[in-house]
Amino acid sequence: MKAEIIAVGTELLLGEITNTTTPYVARELAQLGIDVYHQSVVGDNQARLTEALQQATTRSDLIILTGGLGPTKDDLTKQTVAQYLNEPLVIDQPAMAQIEAFYQQRQRQMTANNRVQAMLPAHATPLENPAGMAVGAFYQTANQAYLLLPGPPHELIAMFKKAARPVLQAYCQAAHVLVSRVLRFHGIGESQLVTTLSELIAQQTNPTIAPYAKPHEVTLRLTATATTTATAAQLLAATTAQILALVGDYYYGEGEDNSLVQVVVAQLKQQHLTITAAESLTAGMFQSTLADVSGASTVFNGGFVTYSLAEKAHLLNIPTADLEAHGVVSAETAIAMASHSKHLLNADIGMGFTGVAGPNELEGQPAGTVYIGVALPNQTPFAKCYHFSGDRASVREQAVLMGLDLLYHQLKVSKK
Amino acid sequence: MKAEIIAVGTELLLGEITNTTTPYVARELAQLGIDVYHQSVVGDNQARLTEALQQATTRSDLIILTGGLGPTKDDLTKQTVAQYLNEPLVIDQPAMAQIEAFYQQRQRQMTANNRVQAMLPAHATPLENPAGMAVGAFYQTANQAYLLLPGPPHELIAMFKKAARPVLQAYCQAAHVLVSRVLRFHGIGESQLVTTLSELIAQQTNPTIAPYAKPHEVTLRLTATATTTATAAQLLAATTAQILALVGDYYYGEGEDNSLVQVVVAQLKQQHLTITAAESLTAGMFQSTLADVSGASTVFNGGFVTYSLAEKAHLLNIPTADLEAHGVVSAETAIAMASHSKHLLNADIGMGFTGVAGPNELEGQPAGTVYIGVALPNQTPFAKCYHFSGDRASVREQAVLMGLDLLYHQLKVSKK
Repeated sequence: MKAEIIAVGTELLLGEITNTTTPYVARELAQLGIDVYHQSVVGDNQARLTEALQQATTRSDLIILTGGLGPTKDDLTKQTVAQYLNEPLVIDQPAMAQIEAFYQQRQRQMTANNRVQAMLPAHATPLENPAGMAVGAFYQTANQAYLLLPGPPHELIAMFKKAARPVLQAYCQAAHVLVSRVLRFHGIGESQLVTTLSELIAQQTNPTIAPYAKPHEVTLRLTATATTTATAAQLLAATTAQILALVGDYYYGEGEDNSLVQVVVAQLKQQHLTITAAESLTAGMFQSTLADVSGASTVFNGGFVTYSLAEKAHLLNIPTADLEAHGVVSAETAIAMASHSKHLLNADIGMGFTGVAGPNELEGQPAGTVYIGVALPNQTPFAKCYHFSGDRASVREQAVLMGLDLLYHQLKVSKK
Repeated sequence: MKAEIIAVGTELLLGEITNTTTPYVARELAQLGIDVYHQSVVGDNQARLTEALQQATTRSDLIILTGGLGPTKDDLTKQTVAQYLNEPLVIDQPAMAQIEAFYQQRQRQMTANNRVQAMLPAHATPLENPAGMAVGAFYQTANQAYLLLPGPPHELIAMFKKAARPVLQAYCQAAHVLVSRVLRFHGIGESQLVTTLSELIAQQTNPTIAPYAKPHEVTLRLTATATTTATAAQLLAATTAQILALVGDYYYGEGEDNSLVQVVVAQLKQQHLTITAAESLTAGMFQSTLADVSGASTVFNGGFVTYSLAEKAHLLNIPTADLEAHGVVSAETAIAMASHSKHLLNADIGMGFTGVAGPNELEGQPAGTVYIGVALPNQTPFAKCYHFSGDRASVREQAVLMGLDLLYHQLKVSKK
C-alpha cells in the first residue's frame, strides 16, 4: 500500500514551526508495513489543498492529512476534504458533548465556531481526540482511504495511538497479525545502543528492531508478524532475551506509555517505602515528576526546595559552617540534603540534588556538574557526581532522570 | 514570486530524521519577501524527483532543492536536475580544489566519487559551501530559477548565509523589507481571541495577523511589509495598539522566545521582591518553573512541597484542625499555605497551590478544581478558585501558569 502525507498549515509553509508530526506518522506507518512515497506541505488555502488531494488520488492508496481541524477560519481541512469527497459535514455527537462539557466545566462561553471541531464528512469513521477537541476522521472510497488527523503534535500522537492505529491495522487487513513491544533504556546513547546491537539489528527481520531516541532515553520497538498472536509473542520474547543479554544493564521497563518515574513509583509502592527530597538546582522538578504519577501520594508526602545556601541551612538544619566548608555543590552537601530531608519528613528514602544548572559556573565548578545524594533505609547515605552537557533546562532534566535511575537500580537490588 | 521547496532524501520520507532545513529556508525566504506555496519531500529516486520537478515547473517561479548533493550513489539531485535542464555536469574548479586540499591535509586517499561533489549543471552559478564539500548551484531559465542546496543543516545554513541569500536578493531585487512581531496572550483561548479580533483580522492586510495556539497560551504574529524598517515598525505599532484595545487584558508580553515566567521573574527583579511557595497538587512544578529562568536566585530562595495533609501541618505549621475543618482543597488552605510559606521563608510574596489533579475526585470536589492562594506585601492574602479541564498533567500545568498569570496582574498593578 502506498501512502502519502499532506501537512496543512501556513505556519509550516512559512517555517514558523518545524513539522514533527509528518516524521512521526511516517515512522508509525513503517511499523504497520505501509510505504510512504510522498510528503508535502500546503498552506491554509482551499484551492491548493484541493489540488494536492487531486494529485494524491492519482498516485496513493492512503492519503493522510494533518492539521486544519481547529475552530478558526484558517482551519479548512475537513471542509475541503468533505467537498472533495462530495459529502456534507455532519456532527459527531460524542465529540460535541466533549466540547460542551469543556466549556461548561470552565464556565466559559462556547463560541459558535467551536461546533466545527465536532464535525466530520458524512460516512466517515470518527476518531476520538483524547488530548483536544477536534475529532479526527477515516473515510474509505473504492480505491482510496483518507485519514484526517489534528495538527498539534500532542493531539495527533494521542489520537494516533488510541484511534487511528487500530483503524489502519484493520484497513490493512493483513492476514497476519502485527505485534509490537517497546523496550526502554536509560543511561545509554542511541549510537552506543545501536553499535552494541548492530549485528542483531542487521540479521533480524522478524521481529524488526527499530531504535528511537527520545529526550534522555532510548527505546527499541520490536515488531513481529505472525499468523497468531501467540507466535508473534514468542518471536518477541526470543529477541527481547537476546537484546537484554547485551544491554540489559540499561533496561528499565517496557511499554509505549511507560516511563522511568512510573517504574520507580511502582517499586516504592511494592516495597512500601516513602520518599522525600531536598532540591537545589532542580528546584522542585524531581518532586513534581514523582507527582506526575497518579497515586504517588501513597509514597510521597512532601519535601523541600532549597535554592539558596541560607535555605539549605534554615529549612534543612544543615550547619552553615558545613555548607561553607564543603561548598553547596559537593558530595557532602548532597548527602546532608538527602539525610536531613529524610529525617525531617520521617521518610524511608531521602534524595538531595545540588549542582550547577548553568549557564554560569558556580563555586568554580562548570555548568552541568551535579551531585545527587541518596539516603536509603539502614544504609550509609552516599552521593554520586555527574557531568551533564546541554543547556540549563537539559541539565536539570537529566539530573531528575538520573536521580530516578539511581533509585531504580538501588530498589532493584534491595528487592532481591 | 512563488517559491517551492523540495527536500530530497529517503531518510526524511521514512521519518528517520526531522526536516529542519525546509522551515529554515521558508523563514529566510519570507524575510526576502518570497512566498512559499508548496513544500514536499521525495526519496532518493530519480523518476519521482523528475516528476516533482515537472510539477514544480508548472506552478512555481523559484524551485529550491535541498539534499542529495553528496558523494554516495543515493545522492542524485544534481544529476537529475542537470538531465531535466538538458545540461551536462561540469566541474567547478574552486570546489574541486577545496576537496583535494581536504584530503591532502588529512593525508587520506580521495575516492573517485568525491569528484561528484564539485560538479554542477553547466551554465549554473556555483555556490560555495563553507561547511562541507558539496558545491551548491543557482540556475536560471526564461521562466524559472533553480536553487540546489546541501541536505545537512549546518552546511545548508552556512551556504545560504554566505552564497545563496545574496544570489536570491539580487534575483528578486526586493525593494521592500518584512518585519514581524509576536504578541503573547494567556487566559484566552485561540477561538475566543480570533472571534474578538475577527473584524480586524479580516480587514487587515499589512501587517497580516496570524494566530497560533501553543500549550495553554496563544500568540499573534504580525508581519508588515514596507520600503523601510521604520515604516514597517510604525505599521506594526498601529495594529498592536488596535489589538491591545480589544484583548489587552490577556496580553503579557512579546517576542518569539518570551514566556509568562520570564516576564514575572523580570517584574519581581525590577520591584525587588522575593517569592516562595507551598505546593500540593503542583508538587514543586511552580518553583521549578521559576528556576527555569537563569538568575531566578535573586528573587527565589526556596519553598515547600506539601503533598499530604500531614505535611501541610508539619512543614507549614497550619493547625491540623483548620485543615480538617476547611478541607485541603479550599480557599482557606490555599491562603494559609501562601501566608505561612511567606512567613517561614521571610519572603515578600507567598503562593499556595492546592487542588485536585485527578483522575479521581478529592473531598467531593471534581478533578480540575484548583485553589491558588496569594500573600502579597502589606495586603490581606486571598485565594482564587479555578476549574481546569484536561488530564492530570494538563491540570497541573494550567495551575502553574494561572499562578504566574495572577502574579503578573498583581505586580502590574502594584508597580503603578
